[in-house]
Amino acid sequence: MTTGHVFIATSLDGFIARRDGAIDWLPGLETDPGENYGYDGFIESIDGLVMGRNSFEKALEFETWPYSRPTIVLSHTLDDMALRGDIRKAVEISRLAPGDLMAALAQRGWSRVHVDGGKVIQSFLREGLIADMVITRVPVLLGAGLPLFGALPADVSLAHDETRAYPSGLVQSRYRVR
Amino acid sequence: MTTGHVFIATSLDGFIARRDGAIDWLPGLETDPGENYGYDGFIESIDGLVMGRNSFEKALEFETWPYSRPTIVLSHTLDDMALRGDIRKAVEISRLAPGDLMAALAQRGWSRVHVDGGKVIQSFLREGLIADMVITRVPVLLGAGLPLFGALPADVSLAHDETRAYPSGLVQSRYRVR
Repeated sequence: MTTGHVFIATSLDGFIARRDGAIDWLPGLETDPGENYGYDGFIESIDGLVMGRNSFEKALEFETWPYSRPTIVLSHTLDDMALRGDIRKAVEISRLAPGDLMAALAQRGWSRVHVDGGKVIQSFLREGLIADMVITRVPVLLGAGLPLFGALPADVSLAHDETRAYPSGLVQSRYRVR
Repeated sequence: MTTGHVFIATSLDGFIARRDGAIDWLPGLETDPGENYGYDGFIESIDGLVMGRNSFEKALEFETWPYSRPTIVLSHTLDDMALRGDIRKAVEISRLAPGDLMAALAQRGWSRVHVDGGKVIQSFLREGLIADMVITRVPVLLGAGLPLFGALPADVSLAHDETRAYPSGLVQSRYRVR
């Protein structure tokens, strides 16, 4: 079975971006020189990414495509044909529902998927497709923005694995979904 | 000057209670026998509490009044005269705005106030009256409820002081408001 894995930063009040998608409040690399907060190790452990259109459009703003693993973009409005030439090999658009997508990815031999973006994480959590989450808290309150979490059909009980505080003030916790 | 201090538990998705005020998802004392998560030390450090009507009515559900420090309840609808006999010495109703209340408490010689309850914490944060917050994360997602944080006129930058993970899975972080 293919499992979903979250690795994401939020403000202390639970937002992953401002309302307009801005992530200016995330500390830059200069805050902890040489520190990648475990991201490189996480990326090495996954077979590919699943994200929504918002995260995809955010990624397109980088000069070069920022992800080294194959990426599935969940969208009903985008089309493979419209993809920029340089990312056509890295990115695939899918209209599948979360469960159907995970079944399709299992067929391809993917075992671990990085699930990214608020709405996509929420829909995968609702379907019970997330195995664990690494959440890094940035010491700031934004007051408004795009939330990491959303409505659920029932409580989701978690097991705390590990927490690490960084000199920059970021606090990273890993939880398994029970 | 009198400073406001927060000591509160939230679900991982940032709720301090379910929509109806229920806190059944908070771990009981049996989870970490003899562990009070630093609450006793915190209470010893404060001169009194400020809370809203919701927290007050929650406290009234206990067989005996649960707070050992003088308590101010912010309410426009309650009245001192309506207070139950056994808590008349412990509780006072106030209609003052946060800043005016803190000025009045300073006059009384209070230096540290425990600010409790979502709406009251949010209004004190908006007025810059909170000095630090101890937030204890319970490893559960509720999906809905009464949020700890709310809208703000601007970002609130925090400094991370300390984080401690408990065997029960609770993770407690202390932040100073910059």
